[in-house]
Amino acid sequence: MTSILVLNRNEIDSLLTLPEAIESVESAYIAKENQTGTLFPFISHEFPSGLGEVDIKSGHLRINRVYGLKLISRFPANRDYSLPATFATSLIFDDRTGEPLALLNASGLTYMRTGAAAAVSMKYLAREDSKTLLVVGMGELAPYLAAAALFVMPQLETLYLYNPHGLEKAKQKEPEFLTTLERLLSSRKGKQFHISICEDLAKASLASDIIVTATPSKIPLLQMDWIKPGTHICAIGSDMKGKQELDSFILTRSTVYVDDKKQAAEIGEVEIPLMYGLMRFDDLKEMGELLITGSPGRNSEEEITVFDATGIALQDLSIARRIYDLAIRAKKGTMIKL
Amino acid sequence: MTSILVLNRNEIDSLLTLPEAIESVESAYIAKENQTGTLFPFISHEFPSGLGEVDIKSGHLRINRVYGLKLISRFPANRDYSLPATFATSLIFDDRTGEPLALLNASGLTYMRTGAAAAVSMKYLAREDSKTLLVVGMGELAPYLAAAALFVMPQLETLYLYNPHGLEKAKQKEPEFLTTLERLLSSRKGKQFHISICEDLAKASLASDIIVTATPSKIPLLQMDWIKPGTHICAIGSDMKGKQELDSFILTRSTVYVDDKKQAAEIGEVEIPLMYGLMRFDDLKEMGELLITGSPGRNSEEEITVFDATGIALQDLSIARRIYDLAIRAKKGTMIKL
Repeated sequence: MTSILVLNRNEIDSLLTLPEAIESVESAYIAKENQTGTLFPFISHEFPSGLGEVDIKSGHLRINRVYGLKLISRFPANRDYSLPATFATSLIFDDRTGEPLALLNASGLTYMRTGAAAAVSMKYLAREDSKTLLVVGMGELAPYLAAAALFVMPQLETLYLYNPHGLEKAKQKEPEFLTTLERLLSSRKGKQFHISICEDLAKASLASDIIVTATPSKIPLLQMDWIKPGTHICAIGSDMKGKQELDSFILTRSTVYVDDKKQAAEIGEVEIPLMYGLMRFDDLKEMGELLITGSPGRNSEEEITVFDATGIALQDLSIARRIYDLAIRAKKGTMIKL
Repeated sequence: MTSILVLNRNEIDSLLTLPEAIESVESAYIAKENQTGTLFPFISHEFPSGLGEVDIKSGHLRINRVYGLKLISRFPANRDYSLPATFATSLIFDDRTGEPLALLNASGLTYMRTGAAAAVSMKYLAREDSKTLLVVGMGELAPYLAAAALFVMPQLETLYLYNPHGLEKAKQKEPEFLTTLERLLSSRKGKQFHISICEDLAKASLASDIIVTATPSKIPLLQMDWIKPGTHICAIGSDMKGKQELDSFILTRSTVYVDDKKQAAEIGEVEIPLMYGLMRFDDLKEMGELLITGSPGRNSEEEITVFDATGIALQDLSIARRIYDLAIRAKKGTMIKL
């Protein structure tokens, strides 16, 4: 009889470390570039009730002998009923026999791979002398983004946090943010860093070398005037049609990297500037190119670089496979007859 | 913490009965027709190794407050290693909150819904005085097709079985076929029926009122000359590009019903005649139209009718939701923290 390993959120959180997530994301980008990984068509559906939406990202990662999918549902009104607003579930299979390998709660996994993707972009695109990081948005993803950044950029000294919902909300969210950050950074070696919550986004942006935006905004938050030369920006929030966190002028004056050009043009930060003809599809570069060619990510100390992340199935598959292997070795999870 | 109910093949086999499967399939067709059900884009991928393929069918069945997907993998060479050649797995979610409901082994479920779909087509399209049923193909699906047919057509007296691999293979497969048939028909009321294995497909076809084809053939098996007037044919096997069980002339001279016109044109029995311009897309009719309008399925006793089934996500969702409800009531399955 067929069996499947079920891995819950706690088990995954205890298995997956930042360096492993970062390595998995890098190898997923390389697989995409050298075509040992394939993305299947992306599915997105808004429910007619207006209550929620569902995305299905699927693909085949030949290098890890795995294929499968991740289904994410977002129901913002759940918060009123003390339910999570997001549920993410992954299913992975062995590409030699089609046997199911694992069912995973993909919430923590998604935060880890998103943080890791942002960090990989910093490793290749941010200035080496970057000292200050600004994270815009203080949702559940924020500590993962900050932790991965602090992990790959041990030279960072200051972490600014900004919450578009105001200072009060930022202070409310801070303890949970710090708890997760500490857990994720337990093995980090690097400078001591200082955390401070900001009230003025313009000032904080002007004072930062790296800016990460992670909000569900549909109105640009960051303005061109607030970005100093040489800044690296990770635009993480835009992952569906109509979302936008950066003023289009920032994108038109930057070198823009994406996970996948087609998907970014459909649902990423670049969707709107492309639609208005402010930038060209062919100007986009994929992270995989950067990793595989070893070409320098930035051409000068003054260049502004943007990483527009929408998240691709290969990242999820790469991390899920890693977690599965770790779980088997550590005898974690519940093996159940199917 | 989120939980999910895991239902394995044995649990599902013990919960789901033919009448429930038939009712679920009918309600799925009606939902498609009155737009309380939505199909998401169909995903199909052949692995570059040439060893297998994977399909993902997903959708939203509003009437049952459920959405989700079924992933089917086919690896024919698995048989050489005593592994199943097909693995099917379903995930369903609550459309009010996005919470995962169940992970199901979808193998038995797929056989049941496919048998049920064929039976629904017979109920509406076969002649009422049909006495003889021929099933072509003796794979795992065959007893489900025969059982569902015998269930909705209690007037059937003779069941012919034909195996394209020859008489010997047919005899080898017979005991397993009979065991499953008996299990499925335990609650059937109707005439005693007689089963016989045939060696000559032409003769068997000419002697049958209803013909069901369920083979992976890529070369037409049934010829026009072998079909007597008034026959109803269920073409079940063609569910991917290039498969074909019926000579194109049969289709061009019949009234053809499908689950979903777009999907049938892509991967169904009608794919090839449409491609060669032998029939028109607009000539296809959907099962849902028939069920919702209550219009007579056949216009005369002489008309040949064909049901070209490719299987749609709404059938799987409808049945999976039914199984989930039955399992909760019967306290079956394993509830597991996610």
